[in-house]
Amino acid sequence: MMIKEIIEQLNAFKTNLFGKDFLLTWEKSEDDLKMILDVAQVLKQMRDDNISPKLFNSGLAVSNFRDKSTRTRFSFASAANLLGLEVQDLDEEKSQIAHGETVRETANMISFLTDFIGIRDDLFLGEGNKYMREVGEALDDGFAEGVLPHRPGIVNLQCDMDHPTQSLSDLLHLKNTYGSLENLKGKKIVMSWAYSPSYGKPLSVPQGIIGLMTRFGMDVTLAHPEGYDLIPEIVDIAKQNAMKSGGEFRVTNDMDSAFVDADIVYPKSWAPYHIMEERTKLLQSGDKTGLDELEIRALSENAKHKDWECDDEKMKLTKEGNALYMHCLPADITGVSCKRGEVEADVFEKYRIRTYLEAGYKPYVIAAMMLANRFENPAEVLNRILDRGEKRVG
Amino acid sequence: MMIKEIIEQLNAFKTNLFGKDFLLTWEKSEDDLKMILDVAQVLKQMRDDNISPKLFNSGLAVSNFRDKSTRTRFSFASAANLLGLEVQDLDEEKSQIAHGETVRETANMISFLTDFIGIRDDLFLGEGNKYMREVGEALDDGFAEGVLPHRPGIVNLQCDMDHPTQSLSDLLHLKNTYGSLENLKGKKIVMSWAYSPSYGKPLSVPQGIIGLMTRFGMDVTLAHPEGYDLIPEIVDIAKQNAMKSGGEFRVTNDMDSAFVDADIVYPKSWAPYHIMEERTKLLQSGDKTGLDELEIRALSENAKHKDWECDDEKMKLTKEGNALYMHCLPADITGVSCKRGEVEADVFEKYRIRTYLEAGYKPYVIAAMMLANRFENPAEVLNRILDRGEKRVG
Amino acid sequence: MMIKEIIEQLNAFKTNLFGKDFLLTWEKSEDDLKMILDVAQVLKQMRDDNISPKLFNSGLAVSNFRDKSTRTRFSFASAANLLGLEVQDLDEEKSQIAHGETVRETANMISFLTDFIGIRDDLFLGEGNKYMREVGEALDDGFAEGVLPHRPGIVNLQCDMDHPTQSLSDLLHLKNTYGSLENLKGKKIVMSWAYSPSYGKPLSVPQGIIGLMTRFGMDVTLAHPEGYDLIPEIVDIAKQNAMKSGGEFRVTNDMDSAFVDADIVYPKSWAPYHIMEERTKLLQSGDKTGLDELEIRALSENAKHKDWECDDEKMKLTKEGNALYMHCLPADITGVSCKRGEVEADVFEKYRIRTYLEAGYKPYVIAAMMLANRFENPAEVLNRILDRGEKRVG
Repeated sequence: MMIKEIIEQLNAFKTNLFGKDFLLTWEKSEDDLKMILDVAQVLKQMRDDNISPKLFNSGLAVSNFRDKSTRTRFSFASAANLLGLEVQDLDEEKSQIAHGETVRETANMISFLTDFIGIRDDLFLGEGNKYMREVGEALDDGFAEGVLPHRPGIVNLQCDMDHPTQSLSDLLHLKNTYGSLENLKGKKIVMSWAYSPSYGKPLSVPQGIIGLMTRFGMDVTLAHPEGYDLIPEIVDIAKQNAMKSGGEFRVTNDMDSAFVDADIVYPKSWAPYHIMEERTKLLQSGDKTGLDELEIRALSENAKHKDWECDDEKMKLTKEGNALYMHCLPADITGVSCKRGEVEADVFEKYRIRTYLEAGYKPYVIAAMMLANRFENPAEVLNRILDRGEKRVG
Repeated sequence: MMIKEIIEQLNAFKTNLFGKDFLLTWEKSEDDLKMILDVAQVLKQMRDDNISPKLFNSGLAVSNFRDKSTRTRFSFASAANLLGLEVQDLDEEKSQIAHGETVRETANMISFLTDFIGIRDDLFLGEGNKYMREVGEALDDGFAEGVLPHRPGIVNLQCDMDHPTQSLSDLLHLKNTYGSLENLKGKKIVMSWAYSPSYGKPLSVPQGIIGLMTRFGMDVTLAHPEGYDLIPEIVDIAKQNAMKSGGEFRVTNDMDSAFVDADIVYPKSWAPYHIMEERTKLLQSGDKTGLDELEIRALSENAKHKDWECDDEKMKLTKEGNALYMHCLPADITGVSCKRGEVEADVFEKYRIRTYLEAGYKPYVIAAMMLANRFENPAEVLNRILDRGEKRVG
Repeated sequence: MMIKEIIEQLNAFKTNLFGKDFLLTWEKSEDDLKMILDVAQVLKQMRDDNISPKLFNSGLAVSNFRDKSTRTRFSFASAANLLGLEVQDLDEEKSQIAHGETVRETANMISFLTDFIGIRDDLFLGEGNKYMREVGEALDDGFAEGVLPHRPGIVNLQCDMDHPTQSLSDLLHLKNTYGSLENLKGKKIVMSWAYSPSYGKPLSVPQGIIGLMTRFGMDVTLAHPEGYDLIPEIVDIAKQNAMKSGGEFRVTNDMDSAFVDADIVYPKSWAPYHIMEERTKLLQSGDKTGLDELEIRALSENAKHKDWECDDEKMKLTKEGNALYMHCLPADITGVSCKRGEVEADVFEKYRIRTYLEAGYKPYVIAAMMLANRFENPAEVLNRILDRGEKRVG
């Protein structure tokens, strides 16, 4: 679709994104989500057409990564830079946070001239999302008291509950693959656990997928071995979403049956909910022996499910043997990045470029979240950018 | 006051800031200091009003932190970004400085396209300020020899002697709290040592406060237990300042009597001068055993002064029991960040937001130092910014 | 020469730089190299004249340093910033590359909104340049498949074979010292090994120098103790270059005779080729004992050649005792940075400022590589910058 057409449609959305943090997709309305997808699409096309959507003359975008990241780190930096903001890392080892500063204080100290704070905090179950809200409350307070000239927006770059910049990139990939959100109705997507030789992978991606894809009438199947449950409250949300949107949601412990007739498969490893709970407690109490024992137990439990691999056989079960394979990357690829992993090398290679395309939406999804947070009328802003015609290069 | 009015006043100042490093407030004239305060105020109001004071189209601001920092790091980055410069960290572990490069060489190597170098070097008594001057001489040399297209300015982000970006933020906070510098005359400010469970905190904040607040006719009391002296030369400077400005300066070993009738209190821990001297020698000789012994000795000495806590009782001694509490943050708060610390939790909480406001001036003070270093006529530049009316956002 | 005159000359060059990576000078034509030198010169003069050559409104320049660096890191950041790009470090410890991501994938993940990737990878013989080409192929693939909106350019910031941003800075320094490239014809330059108390220094600088200086009719002598050979294929390239350009190239094992009548000397330590081969294997197999043994052996071999020092005696052998001394910095200076090193303190001091000037071209050489990679007609672009007259400061 042409940029102008997409922008025109934005006026139809009733959104509540202005001045709001983006923490969980299930706190947002369908219109909110559609707005993000469309603004992201427009920003991507603008950059492809050498149009600069710079909106900030100065300002910081603070990134606070409490876990490793390559792609999300670069996506956040790219989004910020595209809009005119400079990334400043809050490196908690370099800073004095290690010295007992409260979150409340630090949140204000880094925000005097800051427009956004992007946070990744996915290691501790029950903690990451809570931490983001604590930061948010501190910023509310700081703004109300005149400490901050405006309230910086928070972007969830992955927490213990959700990974909204990932799941919305995934959804935009699906929308573009199938032509429209409308076309996704009734499409069967399987979010499946898959074997990995590592343990302790966050739950945020599978939770994000079942929490989001059930919003648009899709037929969502969550598949995992017995015991590899996600957070029960989020599974409930997925159920309710499916009912409301006219879609379906079911859970199964059989990967093969899940794959039958699937349009889309998303096989990815994660740690069982109860293991993450144990791990969180052990990490918090600094119990190294306990952690080592838990790892051995978890890995040996994982090893019972090596057959949960997305191989050619399983792909043949899908619709016309040709389902779309998705992954948030990096995947554990059998014979490539590990001896035995989530996906067979041939299957991955067939879809490799498409997983790159999937990942490529993330910078624009983040930029869209920023734009919608700071500008009440995104359509008007995007039209203004088009009209001024500032080039990105040259 | 309106921006235009403040700018008008700037023309009255006879300053010597153009092309000069900002290393110690006591090397600067009263007019110099007033210029920094007023330019900082204007820049803050501009940003609050969505006016962009960007003055650089490109250029680097190098930060060289030889000690931990959150707030000053972000303040420096914010100031640079506001004016259009990009921060580049000189990380001495990543770089080849560890490989025996002389300061002289490195200073030039990082400066070919650099406009400012911000340095924090506060660990070694007798070293930090000296290091900054060495860097400065190397830059003088590089500029004179045609190696550098212009002489980058140096901003002292805390050394062993002074912490000018902090003390000037503190002064701007006082100025805005009481309405004018004129109104500060005769006001009693107490820079008091306070108990902390850590040792080895730099002397630069108390030294910066007594060195600056004595310039404007304030009644300055320095209070600390016997033995917790500051650098004698700087105490002398404070005495002379007070005489010249018509203020007062006294030293006492009694926290209670110091607090009596105080308008402002600034209770903060620091290491005794002689301990810092010993520590510097032990650090330089790499004597780990000696350092451990010194720490035990210093902490046990500290522990004798747990009553040097800013508690409700002491606050009641101040003028109408209502003195303004100040701190450079983070404070050691009893029952919050430590078992027993510099300040009682209730006292801190009452003034918490005001300490945030105090901290919030720092980015603008740094930006003002940069602006006054690179532009001979700040008033003209600020008027030009107003006239062009470039928005920061949108 | 005036900027306008230099720009006019650019039209005469037939170049093939547009859209091409800059990996090895010997893959580039003489016209390509002249274009880089002249564009670098123009960019330098523009900045000296307060003209901003900003060409990018946004965009990332990713730096991927797999070895330590101060000057090249800052040069890359300065070049990117000058043109309007923001540097984003790919820190392979922070990122998930340690977790088994393939180069192919990472190259795309960091490039969605990236214009340039600067890579330093000089530790492993046979690996660094190969790695850059792997990254390049991944980017070709990503662009062809529509993953990337354009193909980011790669700048070699030092590999196992060449150090083109260094050697071209060196050449620009020579060009400006002697007035023109034409004037370099027949000038005798000695690239000499020199003693250092460290071992394992990369071969890229000496290889870069003999590979480049033989292109312009210079009389190039490579001097080193027996056994301190460079990569044979690159020595062959130097021979062929000299034949084609009407220059000379010879190898000698005698530092004194090499220095006789030299116009320029470049004394610098490096590890022998065969030692680097052994070291590469030991590093790859993680053989710590083997590495320790190799170091002892290599250092004791080095110690036999302590007389390979650039001292006053040797300088007297050069043309009128007054050859130009060059170094890529930092130099191992006898009595300054080590007990005994590559160069006597007095000799170094005499030329110190000139080595700084030499280093000062690097940011502009990198910026020129970027400009020529992204713009088909550099002359037209530079004229456009002149015409628009955007100031860098003020």
